[in-house]
Amino acid sequence: MTRGGEVESVHRGSVAVVSENGHLLAAAGDPLQPVFLRSAAKPFQLTPFLAAGGERSFRLTTEEIALSAASHGGEPFHTRTAASLLSKGGFTAADLHCGAHAPMREETARALAFRHEKPNPLHNNCSGKHAAMLLACRHFRFDPKTYFRPDHPLQKKILSVVARMTGVPEDEIPIGVDGCSVPVHHVPLYNLALAFARLEGGRAPSETAAEFAARRRIVEAMTRAPAMVAGTGRFTTNLMREFGGDLLAKEGAEGVYAVGVPHRLARALPVAGAIGIALKIEDGAERGRDAVTVEVMRQLGLATGARLGNLRRLARRPVRNVRGDVVGGMKPVFSLDLFAAAGGAGGRSWRRP
Amino acid sequence: MTRGGEVESVHRGSVAVVSENGHLLAAAGDPLQPVFLRSAAKPFQLTPFLAAGGERSFRLTTEEIALSAASHGGEPFHTRTAASLLSKGGFTAADLHCGAHAPMREETARALAFRHEKPNPLHNNCSGKHAAMLLACRHFRFDPKTYFRPDHPLQKKILSVVARMTGVPEDEIPIGVDGCSVPVHHVPLYNLALAFARLEGGRAPSETAAEFAARRRIVEAMTRAPAMVAGTGRFTTNLMREFGGDLLAKEGAEGVYAVGVPHRLARALPVAGAIGIALKIEDGAERGRDAVTVEVMRQLGLATGARLGNLRRLARRPVRNVRGDVVGGMKPVFSLDLFAAAGGAGGRSWRRP
Repeated sequence: MTRGGEVESVHRGSVAVVSENGHLLAAAGDPLQPVFLRSAAKPFQLTPFLAAGGERSFRLTTEEIALSAASHGGEPFHTRTAASLLSKGGFTAADLHCGAHAPMREETARALAFRHEKPNPLHNNCSGKHAAMLLACRHFRFDPKTYFRPDHPLQKKILSVVARMTGVPEDEIPIGVDGCSVPVHHVPLYNLALAFARLEGGRAPSETAAEFAARRRIVEAMTRAPAMVAGTGRFTTNLMREFGGDLLAKEGAEGVYAVGVPHRLARALPVAGAIGIALKIEDGAERGRDAVTVEVMRQLGLATGARLGNLRRLARRPVRNVRGDVVGGMKPVFSLDLFAAAGGAGGRSWRRP
Repeated sequence: MTRGGEVESVHRGSVAVVSENGHLLAAAGDPLQPVFLRSAAKPFQLTPFLAAGGERSFRLTTEEIALSAASHGGEPFHTRTAASLLSKGGFTAADLHCGAHAPMREETARALAFRHEKPNPLHNNCSGKHAAMLLACRHFRFDPKTYFRPDHPLQKKILSVVARMTGVPEDEIPIGVDGCSVPVHHVPLYNLALAFARLEGGRAPSETAAEFAARRRIVEAMTRAPAMVAGTGRFTTNLMREFGGDLLAKEGAEGVYAVGVPHRLARALPVAGAIGIALKIEDGAERGRDAVTVEVMRQLGLATGARLGNLRRLARRPVRNVRGDVVGGMKPVFSLDLFAAAGGAGGRSWRRP
């Protein structure tokens, strides 16, 4: 971060780029750095429900599935969709355990305040995920009052998916409480990247056919309805739009970002299959996260030419004074180490013991 | 920063503890790290005006002087005092060039929004400083319309004070534009600590008698009226209260904090005279800044027993989920290197060339 041409502040972080086969293709910082997945876990948290037939049971739409894996802005089309999800299981906003925060979309938050309305749990960026967890309880005949507890059978099913997609055994995954009160998983950055490669890849080891179909449907819904996954003006939504739905992207709190790149986009890389990108800003800041994501894609050759220009504009956040004048900027200053796909550094055995 | 017992994010930074004679007494990270002073410059920005007799000319009160060096919360007693300052020079809020932002004090911001009122420049945390700059223009017969420009004669006078108090020559101080649009100075952290030691110390080299008297008055005003310097619930205000006005503290944006410790409080340290503490959170985050300040004071022996407990409570900011449950915490994990006062590492020559 610069001001008047001088460096004012510095964000550090780590990046891991991993093939669906587990090869570490590129890295910066410490790719084995353990991170809480935060909202980058959402596609995996939704998988057990869809794998069990939840989509058909509740006639879920593409938009509803996308919202179920979203960190949304609390915009009217998000809250309406969350309410619709809830109603399909006979639930209301009062059944959500996520708590209420002001909508992430500032215009929506201001409009709410202007009308002297308080935010409700539907505005919580995780309300879609929580609504889907409630529907899952209905579907599995689990207790919907305690769905957020780590020992709840739905959370056990989710942990199983997280473990198998990240390649980390269940009993080696520390569990914390997320901002929205459900369990959140702590795995090395490498394993988050692996999980996102697998999201875009072929059937993963120990993945059931139903799980495979479910997460393909989740990826399809998220990439087809990117406005549901984040919202108006949000980098994640705009990034997925820029790639015309070919690429999956998901942010998490505390500086986490993950991208799933299908093989057709990754052909320039020395790799068979899909790849996953995961990054963590060490200090948890959001302000450099999008620019770092674009820079990683540039260094991998995934963003070039006019598309690179578009992405840089999306990620651009100049430093402004209160009057709005630009008084500084930000600049990515890292170089990925690029490894040959067949190199010894990759592979599933490459995890912190 | 922890969540569920695991580390989630890490803030790095640097600390410099310097005697008024320029000895480096203690350090962590890189004490020569250049930092923009941001609002830690405010006592120095006020000095030329008071040194020229501004207090008598405008019959300034202790509260008005304190607000002139404040990053205040925009609370009613702050904006009233800023308006009073302006009126003493025949100015209004329209003459302030700082721009308007929502009051830093959340309750005040919410009350404003509830009444459908927009923030005005009086709410800007720097409005007192800007009002004092306008009065200074009146006093010096400078143009009050361009007071914020780096080439304005008032800003030249301020640069001279900053240079002499920090011990960095004027032409070696890069200038940026602060959030409130006035020039902001980039000096090594060591030199910010030195300047705060000098604020609490005897007459500094090349300081005029009038400047000496002015900054003693500024320190007196800030420590006697700490609610003006920050505001309700703010760490800086509470820290100064905890020390009963014996200690000067000032925060700056982007993770900057500075403390001036008079000799009577620093007797336990192997040093003659006052000391200054300056710290910078590398990534600019605020969330760990107060806890780091308390930890530095603990390691220096400046905060012990019941007072240490009180300060820790003031700085405490547990990680909570949206529902308000504590789900994580923060912990300072650094050790200051402590140097003997007579050691070779100290002294005014110890600056990056």
